[in-house]
Amino acid sequence: MNPISLSVARRALAWLVLSSGGALAASSAHTGELLFGLFWVVLAAALLGTLASKVGIPAVVGQVLAGILIGPSLLNLVRPGDFFLTLAELGAIFLLFMVGLETRFKELLAVGREALLVAVLGIALPLGLGFGFGLWQGQGNVSALFVGTALVATSVGITAKVLQELGVLDARFAQVILGAAVIDDILGLTLLAVVSSLGAGRTLSAVQVGLTLALSVGFVALVLAVGIPLVRRFQNRLSNLSLSRAFNVAVVVGLGIAALSTVAGLAPIIGAFLAGMVLAEIKDEVEFESKVHAIEAFLAPVFFVVVGLQLDVGALSQPTVIVAGLILTVLAVAGKLLGGILGAWSLGRHEATLVGLGMVPRGEVGLIVASLGLGVGIIGERVYAEVLLMVLLTTVLAPLVLRAVMRRRVPARVLH
Amino acid sequence: MNPISLSVARRALAWLVLSSGGALAASSAHTGELLFGLFWVVLAAALLGTLASKVGIPAVVGQVLAGILIGPSLLNLVRPGDFFLTLAELGAIFLLFMVGLETRFKELLAVGREALLVAVLGIALPLGLGFGFGLWQGQGNVSALFVGTALVATSVGITAKVLQELGVLDARFAQVILGAAVIDDILGLTLLAVVSSLGAGRTLSAVQVGLTLALSVGFVALVLAVGIPLVRRFQNRLSNLSLSRAFNVAVVVGLGIAALSTVAGLAPIIGAFLAGMVLAEIKDEVEFESKVHAIEAFLAPVFFVVVGLQLDVGALSQPTVIVAGLILTVLAVAGKLLGGILGAWSLGRHEATLVGLGMVPRGEVGLIVASLGLGVGIIGERVYAEVLLMVLLTTVLAPLVLRAVMRRRVPARVLH
Repeated sequence: MNPISLSVARRALAWLVLSSGGALAASSAHTGELLFGLFWVVLAAALLGTLASKVGIPAVVGQVLAGILIGPSLLNLVRPGDFFLTLAELGAIFLLFMVGLETRFKELLAVGREALLVAVLGIALPLGLGFGFGLWQGQGNVSALFVGTALVATSVGITAKVLQELGVLDARFAQVILGAAVIDDILGLTLLAVVSSLGAGRTLSAVQVGLTLALSVGFVALVLAVGIPLVRRFQNRLSNLSLSRAFNVAVVVGLGIAALSTVAGLAPIIGAFLAGMVLAEIKDEVEFESKVHAIEAFLAPVFFVVVGLQLDVGALSQPTVIVAGLILTVLAVAGKLLGGILGAWSLGRHEATLVGLGMVPRGEVGLIVASLGLGVGIIGERVYAEVLLMVLLTTVLAPLVLRAVMRRRVPARVLH
Repeated sequence: MNPISLSVARRALAWLVLSSGGALAASSAHTGELLFGLFWVVLAAALLGTLASKVGIPAVVGQVLAGILIGPSLLNLVRPGDFFLTLAELGAIFLLFMVGLETRFKELLAVGREALLVAVLGIALPLGLGFGFGLWQGQGNVSALFVGTALVATSVGITAKVLQELGVLDARFAQVILGAAVIDDILGLTLLAVVSSLGAGRTLSAVQVGLTLALSVGFVALVLAVGIPLVRRFQNRLSNLSLSRAFNVAVVVGLGIAALSTVAGLAPIIGAFLAGMVLAEIKDEVEFESKVHAIEAFLAPVFFVVVGLQLDVGALSQPTVIVAGLILTVLAVAGKLLGGILGAWSLGRHEATLVGLGMVPRGEVGLIVASLGLGVGIIGERVYAEVLLMVLLTTVLAPLVLRAVMRRRVPARVLH
C-alpha cells in the first residue's frame, strides 16, 4: 500500500471484513481500539484522580493507580502500546513545559549550589546502596551496577505535578528539586551510558564520558544563554501577538527544544522544562499559559496513567521477591532522602526534608533502566520484579508523604 | 522485552549505541524522531496557516499545503506514520467535537429535510458521474464503482474549520452542511462496504446492507435521544462542577462516543460531533468550550497537515494522468455542487450554492477509498493518481471559493 492513512484505512478494511463477514468483531479496528483505550485512560484518570483529591491524596497518585487498575495486570482494558507511550511522553513534555513556564531562571540559579549538591549526593548514595544490595544478593558487578543505576534517576514529573497541585512550585525547596532534576538527568543518563557499555562488554574512555557530559551540559547552557536574551529582545514583537499566535510560538519553541535535547542526550522533558523557563522570562508580557495549561490538563494524566500501565503487579507474586523489593525500596528512599537532606541542609531541616522527599519517586525512569537491563540480559526477571516494586512504592508513597509533611511542617511564608 | 515503555526504552537503547559507538547518528532514536516530526508539523502549520490568513486564504488551506511541502513528495521532513495518523485522527475528533459544541440540535433538525436531500443527491450524483467516468476510461464495473465511491464522501473537517474560522457555524447553510455530513458518512460508509465486498468477489444481501444502515442510523438516533435528556437531567449537577472537572466530563463523553461510533460503523468524527451537540444543550450553564478549544487549536492543524502529508504530488508527473484527474475533479465538483444546490434550493440560490461548495472538499476520505482500492488491487496506480489530484484540488480550492463567495454574496443577516 502507498504512503497513506494506515490507521484510517484499517477502519475501512475492518468495514470490508464487517460487510463481507457480517461479524461485529471487526469493529475492533485499530483506530477504534486506540480510541477506546484513550477513553479508558481519560475516564480512569478523571475518576481516580478526583477520588484521590477528595480523600486528600495527590491526584497523580490516583492516576498512577488508575493505570495499574486498567492495565494488563488487572482489568486489562488498555495495553501500553507505542501510541500511548508516545502520547504519554508528549504529556510529560507539556507538563514540564508548563512547570518551566512557572519557574524563574534567576530563582533557580539562586539555589544552584544546593541543587548541584542534591543531585550529586542523590546519585552517589542510591548508586552505592543499590550496587551494594546487588553484590549482597550475589549478583555480578555489572548486574549490581544496573540495580544501582535503576535507583538513580528521579521521575521529576511526579513530584513537579504534586508541587504544582499544591501551588508551591515557586517555593525555594521546589526550585532546588527542579534544578536538581535537570542535573540528575544529565548525570543519570551519562551514568546509564557508562553502565550500558560495560554491559555490552565495552569500556568507555574518560574522553568519551567527558564528551557525553560536555554535550548535555553545553546544551543546557546554550539554551539558557541564547534563549533568554533572545526572547527578551523580541519581547515587544511577541507581546503584540494574538493569543492564538502566542500559543503557536510557545508550542513550536517547546517541542523544538524538547526534540533538540534528545540530540544532546537529554530526556525531552528536560528540554521542555528549559524552553518553558526561557519563555517564562516574558510571561508577564505575553500570555502563553492558559492554552498550554489546557493541553497539559488533557495529556499529563495520560502520562501518569501510562506509568501505571507499565507497572505489571502480576510479577510480584513471590514472597522472596517482595521482601527483597522492600529492602531495595528502603535503600532507594534512604539514598534520595539523605542526598536531599544533606545537599539542601542550608535551607534548614524542614525544607531539606521536603527536597529529599521530592527526589524519591522513580516513576518511569527506573523502569526504563531495569527493562533495558532485562532486555540485554544483564539482569534477570527476579531482579526486574524487585526494581518494579521499588518503582511502584516510591512513585505512589513519596507524593503522599511529601504532601502530608508539607501540610504539617512548612511555615506559611514558604508556601507564599 | 517485557511490557514496558518501548519508545522511551529506545531512547535509552540509542544511548547504549551512542555511548559504545560514540556516533551521534544514534540521536535519531524513535522518540526524538517523532518529536522532530511533530515540531515540523506544528511549525509548518503555524507559518503557512498564518501566511494564508494574511493573504486572505483560509488557514486550513495553508496547513494542507504545509503538509505537502514538508511531506515525502517535497522536503521529506516528516512521513505520515502510525503516530501522526492517529494524532491527526484525534485532531479531527476534537475539531468536530468543538463544532458540535457550537451546534444546536434543534437548529440542525430544522434543516433536516434539506440536509437529507443534499446528502442523498450529493452521493448519487458524484457516484454516477464517477462510475460513468470509469467506464468511459475503459475500467471494469467494480473499478469504476470504486472511482465513483471515492467521489462520494465529503471531508467535513475541512469545511467545518473554514466555517468556524469565519464565525458562521450557526448560519442556516452551515447547519445544512453539518447535517448532510452526518448522513453523508452513514450512506458513504455503507456504500463503501457494498463496493468493497463486490471488490472481494462477494455480494452483500439486501438484509446485510439494511442491517449496516440500521446500525449506524440507530446509533445516531440513540445518542441524541438518550444523550440530550440525560445531560438536561444532570444539568444542575454538571453546572456545579469546577472548570477542570467539567472539562474531564466533556473529554470523557467526547472520546467515549467517538469510540463507540466506530463500533456502529461510523467515522469517529461523527460520534465526536454528536457528543459535542449533546453537550451543547447545556453549554450556557456549563463551561466546556475554552479548554476543548485549546486542544483543538493544538491538534486540528496536525490533522490538516497530515492530510497534506498523504498527498504525494510526486505521483502527478504524467500529463495524461493530470488531464484525466482534471476531468475527474470537474465531475467531483459538479456532482457535489449540483447536489448541494438542488438539495438546499429552498434556502435560496445563494445559500444553496454555499451548501454545494461546502460539500466539495474530499480531503482524507477520498484518499482512504482510493488507497483501499489500490491496496486490494481493484484500481491501478494510474487511477489512484487521478483520484489524488481530485482530492488535492477539491480540498485546496473549494475553501478558497467558498470563502470568496461567502464574503461577496451572503447578506449580513445570514452571517449574523
